[in-house]
Amino acid sequence: MSDQLPQGFRAAGVYSGVKRSSNKLDVALLVSDRPAVAAGVYTQNVVCGAPVHLNRERTPSETVRAVVINSGVANACTGEQGMRDAVEMTESTATACGLAAQDVLVMSTGLIGEHLPMEKICAGISDAASKLADHEQALIDAARGMMTTDTVHKIRSRQIELDGRRVTITGIAKGAAMIGPNMATMLAVVMTDAAVAVADAQHGLKDAVDESFNCISVDGHTSTSDTVLLVANGAVGGEALSGGELAKFQATLVEVCEDLAQSIPADGEGASHLITVEVHGCQSRTDAVTIAKTIADSPLVKTAIAGADPNWGRIVSAAGYAGIAFDPTKVSLLINGMLLYEKGAPVEFDAAAVSASIRDNRDTGIVLLLDEGSASARFWTTDLTAEYVRLNADYHT
Amino acid sequence: MSDQLPQGFRAAGVYSGVKRSSNKLDVALLVSDRPAVAAGVYTQNVVCGAPVHLNRERTPSETVRAVVINSGVANACTGEQGMRDAVEMTESTATACGLAAQDVLVMSTGLIGEHLPMEKICAGISDAASKLADHEQALIDAARGMMTTDTVHKIRSRQIELDGRRVTITGIAKGAAMIGPNMATMLAVVMTDAAVAVADAQHGLKDAVDESFNCISVDGHTSTSDTVLLVANGAVGGEALSGGELAKFQATLVEVCEDLAQSIPADGEGASHLITVEVHGCQSRTDAVTIAKTIADSPLVKTAIAGADPNWGRIVSAAGYAGIAFDPTKVSLLINGMLLYEKGAPVEFDAAAVSASIRDNRDTGIVLLLDEGSASARFWTTDLTAEYVRLNADYHT
Repeated sequence: MSDQLPQGFRAAGVYSGVKRSSNKLDVALLVSDRPAVAAGVYTQNVVCGAPVHLNRERTPSETVRAVVINSGVANACTGEQGMRDAVEMTESTATACGLAAQDVLVMSTGLIGEHLPMEKICAGISDAASKLADHEQALIDAARGMMTTDTVHKIRSRQIELDGRRVTITGIAKGAAMIGPNMATMLAVVMTDAAVAVADAQHGLKDAVDESFNCISVDGHTSTSDTVLLVANGAVGGEALSGGELAKFQATLVEVCEDLAQSIPADGEGASHLITVEVHGCQSRTDAVTIAKTIADSPLVKTAIAGADPNWGRIVSAAGYAGIAFDPTKVSLLINGMLLYEKGAPVEFDAAAVSASIRDNRDTGIVLLLDEGSASARFWTTDLTAEYVRLNADYHT
Repeated sequence: MSDQLPQGFRAAGVYSGVKRSSNKLDVALLVSDRPAVAAGVYTQNVVCGAPVHLNRERTPSETVRAVVINSGVANACTGEQGMRDAVEMTESTATACGLAAQDVLVMSTGLIGEHLPMEKICAGISDAASKLADHEQALIDAARGMMTTDTVHKIRSRQIELDGRRVTITGIAKGAAMIGPNMATMLAVVMTDAAVAVADAQHGLKDAVDESFNCISVDGHTSTSDTVLLVANGAVGGEALSGGELAKFQATLVEVCEDLAQSIPADGEGASHLITVEVHGCQSRTDAVTIAKTIADSPLVKTAIAGADPNWGRIVSAAGYAGIAFDPTKVSLLINGMLLYEKGAPVEFDAAAVSASIRDNRDTGIVLLLDEGSASARFWTTDLTAEYVRLNADYHT
């Protein structure tokens, strides 16, 4: 039995023939042995794929039993065919597992532009249902079954004691590395055996996503299919969490989501740095996130880091066009802990040392200090390398 | 005498020793032989350089006589030293030309991180004042004197008949190509010999900039020094323009600004395509501009064009995350006049033909049709190539 898979869950990942190589799994299935509370947070894109529409209809829920995911070809269509295919994936799962289709959620990711090869996918779902298991490899196979351009599967897990019971919170995710004409999709499913009330699950997931998945970007492009699901089956027993125990659960949920979120830019194809942008001293968290995101999305900042250049000018000026008012004469900036800019002016610093610290580490820390208030935010992104462009421009050749 | 230089203006551009090569001019001077109406539109960045602060104090004006520009090293400082240097450039110009310093505007662009070499620049200003002339080469020299990474100087001009008088509107600009640790500065000065009331000049320039310079981006990074000035000296005589004649002037001013604005991404270093994004059928122009800019700033769209890939998914999904509500089932998309996507779904199209048309032309036209209203917008940008990243990451090596 897996340490990471919460109680009462089984998982599977199989190869259905959709991807080119049988080394690459392309159908993932997660099943709870009892009805579970489920919450979802979805893309803000006004164009969104059929699975997002279907999940939106089906969450929040107190009776979810399964999540089915296909990869390789995305169901990114907004039309009738897309919705028929999404429903059919849930029906196929329901039949194979002896559930009601209404209690199955669905995700889809991969190349766009063609309809789903439903025959292969449904056969894959049957196959996955027959292989459902609660051992470690089953969870890894499920995580692999949702990968597209990810180079590694992504599983993050925490255990804590709540109300005297050992609770597990485990998430699997796929990243947003942007090669191929896919839709930059970020998908995650977080499972827990804790008992959580449906309203708490929905609010808690929304807050956790705001602090994690909504604080990463690889290229600032919001997918039409981005989805994060939380499935809480209460298998550890007891009443739904409340008060301080619920708060502890929430803090741990945030940690799992942050770990999963960071794993996505960390695996960005063609990237040579994972950049953490921290902004402190803002009037509100929204201000801090907006400034951090603007710095993180600046191609000039991202190319400077790729080139190991401690270019304070690009960072400070990016902050300046975020649309948030602040006093520029009170701004200070550190890169990798070294002070480059203090109260509105550059300071003497050892440029060679800062450059070496960027060049020699995969992680780069940018810290911007304002003096407007006490709110802060962290945002994670990648640098911008020629390799990234090559992967994104020349994927057809 | 230059056809392009409006009456009553003289220009000069010289080498003062700030740039590395004497083939590259680094001081530009424009002087009106009489007091002129002057208007300015400046960067929205909350961090801005001293010249922007000084010009903001001095415009709108009815008594401007000169604009002085240095390139090579930027006065990007917000502190006292920066303001002293900016004021000194205007004083030096005033002394050399026999004017009041208050009537001189100033711009500065180039590398940041060091203070201006004021001795060289002031000597250059004297030299430029002695070379002021109204012939074509003098205008070209001024345009060259403001260049940083531009590969060509940028002059655009129109003549029209207003109130029975031949009026010239001519602008010079420098671009936002982003190599070197500069601040992505975009500068332009538009001169005219028309008589324009100061309020009309200010409003008119604001509107023209909104339709031109505010509709370009190379990398979405707003400089701390972006400045567009309009100087109208009324040398053709007559009362200030009004009514229909003023409207004709305004339309021509917009054309000159659009021509200048397009010349900037067209000269983007490392870019292989000038992309025009048109968005039609929006509820408001603001909606249309927001969607067009979101598409234009998407690295995924820009890399797709670099790779000659007719990737409708990236374009439609970028529109979807612009934050503007629209019905995705009514969206259509054309690239280079060929229909790829109609009313929310991809259509059959000759991908090889679209790809070839992108690959074989420097200009790429993206047209997105919504069905929400009658407002539209155009936005110009470049593609994103590995060469761009190389130039922006490796400028130190």
